[in-house]
Amino acid sequence: MDGKVFLVGAGPGDPELLTVKALRLLQGADVVLHDDLISSQILDLASKNAHVRSVGKRCGRKKIHQEEINALLIAYASFGLKVVRLKSGDPLLFGRAGEEIEALRKAHVNFEIVPGVTSASAAAVALEASLTHRNKASAVVFLTSHRAAHRSTEWKTYLRSGATLAIYMPGADYAGTAASLVGAGIHSTTPCAVVSQASTKDQQIHRTTVSGLTDAPQLPTPTILLVGEVLAAEEIASQRNPVSALPLLREPDLGLPAFEVFADNQVFLR
Amino acid sequence: MDGKVFLVGAGPGDPELLTVKALRLLQGADVVLHDDLISSQILDLASKNAHVRSVGKRCGRKKIHQEEINALLIAYASFGLKVVRLKSGDPLLFGRAGEEIEALRKAHVNFEIVPGVTSASAAAVALEASLTHRNKASAVVFLTSHRAAHRSTEWKTYLRSGATLAIYMPGADYAGTAASLVGAGIHSTTPCAVVSQASTKDQQIHRTTVSGLTDAPQLPTPTILLVGEVLAAEEIASQRNPVSALPLLREPDLGLPAFEVFADNQVFLR
Repeated sequence: MDGKVFLVGAGPGDPELLTVKALRLLQGADVVLHDDLISSQILDLASKNAHVRSVGKRCGRKKIHQEEINALLIAYASFGLKVVRLKSGDPLLFGRAGEEIEALRKAHVNFEIVPGVTSASAAAVALEASLTHRNKASAVVFLTSHRAAHRSTEWKTYLRSGATLAIYMPGADYAGTAASLVGAGIHSTTPCAVVSQASTKDQQIHRTTVSGLTDAPQLPTPTILLVGEVLAAEEIASQRNPVSALPLLREPDLGLPAFEVFADNQVFLR
Repeated sequence: MDGKVFLVGAGPGDPELLTVKALRLLQGADVVLHDDLISSQILDLASKNAHVRSVGKRCGRKKIHQEEINALLIAYASFGLKVVRLKSGDPLLFGRAGEEIEALRKAHVNFEIVPGVTSASAAAVALEASLTHRNKASAVVFLTSHRAAHRSTEWKTYLRSGATLAIYMPGADYAGTAASLVGAGIHSTTPCAVVSQASTKDQQIHRTTVSGLTDAPQLPTPTILLVGEVLAAEEIASQRNPVSALPLLREPDLGLPAFEVFADNQVFLR
């Protein structure tokens, strides 16, 4: 059997955040089976001869079961076709690829997984905040808020350990989520932010605190909720910090003069 | 000032796992400042006119301080140049971009962050394992094993909550890490795996358990250590599960006959 299934991460939304490999596979695909969240901009990059079909579970006219998606993947590959199964973000992070991998294994169908940029990375870019920071967070936890009420204990331990939380699919009940966080012992002034449609032209950001989350506006999905001290606005130091250890820089390759630099952007030519 | 700094994630190693945007920026860069872990294959993609310079802290002939890197970024941008600061993986996940962002802000230098595929995603692909799985892991924790001895309590809470651990830069002391995990109350039979140079042609995998980690071979860096039940080998069900809910499929677009599919890859034409 020459057919093959590629489980491909499409990244967070911006078509330029596809990997080079994902783009190549899309351009050579016979069939593209995609989730609802994949934009038309990305689907337009597929081969013009490709059969492009949504297997999204949310907005479709009829509900598609996971078993049916598995069966489609197997069937198309059995006919010798190159099948791209396109998932938003990274397929192995909340992409529910596990069930499809199991089905393809059982069916002895050739498959390959292509990682993608996960949505939390794009949300962090939107906020210009490191998810991990040498002084503020030694770890980051990626989770969903499904069954949020049962998560208080987990959230408490995660945040006590100094981790940043990246909550995928936080849902519309921000007040409930805020209550769970406070109930878990999170300080109400802990910074948090909702990022909607990260990396796309429609991206929106709402920065707040855990207590302020209750009144946060409902932003269009997909959203991601980040919680942690790494989101605190950086303090801009007013004093001048000369980079005393810095030698005189010479960059003959670029034809630049020798220069010295101070950390607040004062560049002195010599 | 027309200069600009792009803090760019280069992904886990495979040049095809660069994003389309990262590739475009590399091809248009005046200056590329890169970490040690960036391969020559990736650096070869930069503009032939670009000044490419390692600012890695490990293998260089002389030690480069973070302050010096910050100053270089500011200086090059001050001369109106397009500067790509290339970091392996994702810049906001253990990329230490936080300090560079702060320095660029203080200096009022124009900058932009471009996310990348993080190494844990590539390691998961190597193992063909979802980091999150509907039944096995509701969350994944990304952390480093720096100060591992102090991490027992954190590890315990993370694993008790059902999270997969993705330990970046686990270091060479596998026995010490295994002892910390067992000391934290992790069952010694919990599956784990070391992935070396994920996504590259030199990728190596060592699958073991927490107790077996003690005797794991030293694999070339960069490595990543994954721990959790999601790494258990999938059970291949022997029974045939007909997809009874599946309607007769017709794919006129592809010129295929109508067919019915069973989950173990039996495709029946009609």
